[in-house]
Amino acid sequence: MTYKTAVIGLGSMGYGMAQSALAAGHQTYGYDRVAAQMDRFVAQGGAKGALAEVAPQLDAVVVVVLNADQTQAVLFGEDGVVPRLSKGAVVLACATVPPAFAKDMEAQCAAHGVHYLDAPISGGSIKAAQGALSIMAAGTPDAFKAAKPVLDALAETVFELGDAAGGGSAMKAVNQLLAGVHIATMAEAMTFGMTQGVTPEKFTEVISKCAGSSWMLENRAPHIVAGDYTPHSQVNIWPKDLGIVLDVAKSAGFSAPITATALQQYMVAVGMGLGAEDDAAIAKVYARNAGLDLPKPKD
Amino acid sequence: MTYKTAVIGLGSMGYGMAQSALAAGHQTYGYDRVAAQMDRFVAQGGAKGALAEVAPQLDAVVVVVLNADQTQAVLFGEDGVVPRLSKGAVVLACATVPPAFAKDMEAQCAAHGVHYLDAPISGGSIKAAQGALSIMAAGTPDAFKAAKPVLDALAETVFELGDAAGGGSAMKAVNQLLAGVHIATMAEAMTFGMTQGVTPEKFTEVISKCAGSSWMLENRAPHIVAGDYTPHSQVNIWPKDLGIVLDVAKSAGFSAPITATALQQYMVAVGMGLGAEDDAAIAKVYARNAGLDLPKPKD
Repeated sequence: MTYKTAVIGLGSMGYGMAQSALAAGHQTYGYDRVAAQMDRFVAQGGAKGALAEVAPQLDAVVVVVLNADQTQAVLFGEDGVVPRLSKGAVVLACATVPPAFAKDMEAQCAAHGVHYLDAPISGGSIKAAQGALSIMAAGTPDAFKAAKPVLDALAETVFELGDAAGGGSAMKAVNQLLAGVHIATMAEAMTFGMTQGVTPEKFTEVISKCAGSSWMLENRAPHIVAGDYTPHSQVNIWPKDLGIVLDVAKSAGFSAPITATALQQYMVAVGMGLGAEDDAAIAKVYARNAGLDLPKPKD
Repeated sequence: MTYKTAVIGLGSMGYGMAQSALAAGHQTYGYDRVAAQMDRFVAQGGAKGALAEVAPQLDAVVVVVLNADQTQAVLFGEDGVVPRLSKGAVVLACATVPPAFAKDMEAQCAAHGVHYLDAPISGGSIKAAQGALSIMAAGTPDAFKAAKPVLDALAETVFELGDAAGGGSAMKAVNQLLAGVHIATMAEAMTFGMTQGVTPEKFTEVISKCAGSSWMLENRAPHIVAGDYTPHSQVNIWPKDLGIVLDVAKSAGFSAPITATALQQYMVAVGMGLGAEDDAAIAKVYARNAGLDLPKPKD
């Protein structure tokens, strides 16, 4: 089935997702605050048209912005898209947001006859462009049905996490808690090892095969070994996402001391001016504290 | 090459290692403070004889006790084995100990003409009995050469971590830092998820396939789902091993805040009387704090 689809937010994830929707044969419009990103997408085959005019014809809107505030603004702010959609259209909301926010958006969309799929994403920009993301999805059976052609285009794996919004965002928060702590712990362990003569290279080679390994360690430790902090995923993501985890935890009366401690290390990284570097740069916090020299980039 | 080998310490790891040495064709003596464990091993084919009398004929001594103090006592305490060994024999020291302690033992063994292999182990009791451990080994080339027939019998993977003792223990400390934090973080994330309607079953199913996964999560989360805290590895291991990490870190002027925070959670578990349960029982700390009911054992 060919859809008219809009992707709102053409950042590192959203741009790749727009490409994947296009590659799957959907008529795809791309929107971003940066006009050059929109022009680039049109040059690659994206459809062209002002969102306000296109909206009534859209089957699906994929929102890939930074956070809950931006999601709210895109959907219901000044020039918000939802009131312009036709009944039966579906919104796929992909930002990491509190589960309660997702529930609220679902209810507001329902008041306009629009389906809402709580659909946080995982997998990184490369998988986004390959249509191979993991999507942690929750929503009504009608929302899933309406979203299916888009999910098929974007995702390798769709986890179905309940028949109401919130379940996807809850699982995403759980995943981010783990991923954020694992990156920081990798950095803590690697630099601790350096004080004992374990090189970053040997650390990465050996621990990847041992019980101390994690998905994030295998993915991020090589960045430090290479001295390459080109941002695949920025340090700045973690104060945001671990902040959401701790806000949700506070509301639930839940103590999350390890998450809170990891967050402090990311805050130090931001304070050091590393916010826009790859999140593996959290190792620089430990290296500075202990007077260690991390590997330099290879020439 | 058939060796005369002694395994000192027939606990869950040492007993399986003694079985593996036996299965590989080595004449193997087993020693433990619990006489019944020694009798059991003899009944399964172990060699019989007082350590003091057997020592001069031994090619290798594998020490699989709890910590540095016990290792010191076995090697050089009253009735210590090293002074009774012949020159050229090798000690494989498998406990998790500070790297500086391993260096000290190596020097003391060298004074008796005995080789010392710093050889901490990883992999659990099942792999111990299959001769399929990972061994993080460091020592002189002569120590490696002397230890080879035993390493072949016990290990699937031998990481060669330098030509002097300390390198193996350093890598083991790094691995334990990660493993201990990952278990506690798994428990923090799983119980946090429960406050948001994510069941332990769904958590385990989904996160195992996501970026938040870790070796320890995949191994331990199912214990909580099954409500089965039969100790494969006890809670008590972690105050000991993370304590070693923090002692070494303190000596090196290294700040390890995530490790320190995870250790506190294990200390709460010990305070709750859970020390002898499987280390997945750290989830009970979070569950108690937040008033959550963890899964009960299936009948």
